[in-house]
Amino acid sequence: MALKSLDDLFVHFLRDMHNAEQQVLAALPAMSDSAAGELRKTLDDHRDETEQQIANLERVFEMLGVEPDGVNCTAIDGILAEGRAIIAEAEQRDAREAGLIAAAQAIEHYEITRYGTLFAWATELGKPEAAKLLRANLEQEYAADRKLTDLAGRTLNREAA
Amino acid sequence: MALKSLDDLFVHFLRDMHNAEQQVLAALPAMSDSAAGELRKTLDDHRDETEQQIANLERVFEMLGVEPDGVNCTAIDGILAEGRAIIAEAEQRDAREAGLIAAAQAIEHYEITRYGTLFAWATELGKPEAAKLLRANLEQEYAADRKLTDLAGRTLNREAA
Repeated sequence: MALKSLDDLFVHFLRDMHNAEQQVLAALPAMSDSAAGELRKTLDDHRDETEQQIANLERVFEMLGVEPDGVNCTAIDGILAEGRAIIAEAEQRDAREAGLIAAAQAIEHYEITRYGTLFAWATELGKPEAAKLLRANLEQEYAADRKLTDLAGRTLNREAA
Repeated sequence: MALKSLDDLFVHFLRDMHNAEQQVLAALPAMSDSAAGELRKTLDDHRDETEQQIANLERVFEMLGVEPDGVNCTAIDGILAEGRAIIAEAEQRDAREAGLIAAAQAIEHYEITRYGTLFAWATELGKPEAAKLLRANLEQEYAADRKLTDLAGRTLNREAA
């Protein structure tokens, strides 16, 4: 890793997100399998969105003429490990659903902060087409997070009823 | 770890955040040392805020009558490891500052999602005093994140000028 300039950092963080999204794509089926109903559907929909986001990132790599591989995202490693622990340990349905939603929101928030940063850097570095694709990913993550917040509220209220 | 119920999950995530905040408190001085000017002051201010947030969490543990220790937050481990790599590798001032801000925002977003979840669960579990303290932490994290976004914009514009 050589991160001398903002350009280097931009490529490094793009690779970090490309790896993160692939790890998320691999993790979502197990999360979905341990969920039911609307939460399961939300996680399955997010799998499709994640595939689109990976495709958007790959268009950015093509524009820049660099390879997407080479960075392991240690942050998402840790976030997903917490999610797996919840799936393995939470026994009651309300705890498992609440825990799964919290795990999914931790993923979304990591992606929100990274795409927010990448969008700002792409704009700064004079790459409007890359910025547009990164903004599309950012907005999709915000929407997914809002959906999960809404679902968490309804899930908790249902359990309380 | 036994996360049978939402109560168990609430205590587990409180402990996770208590460990995360302590890791952040330990990491902030090195981040501050590699920054200058307004960014350095922002990171130093956030160190004071982090101490207050730990005190708020410890009041919640007292209310619940449980010990704060016993969970290692693997998510923040990974987020802080990425931050350390940026400090070690970013050579040019604009890259280092932009990278430090991005690392700090990844910390804030993890804390935002967790305090958001903990606030919702405390409310759901009928613990309004705990909810109030968790909401105070949540709002402080939102404010810190907004400050960093603002600082990132001004830093990048300064470098571009």
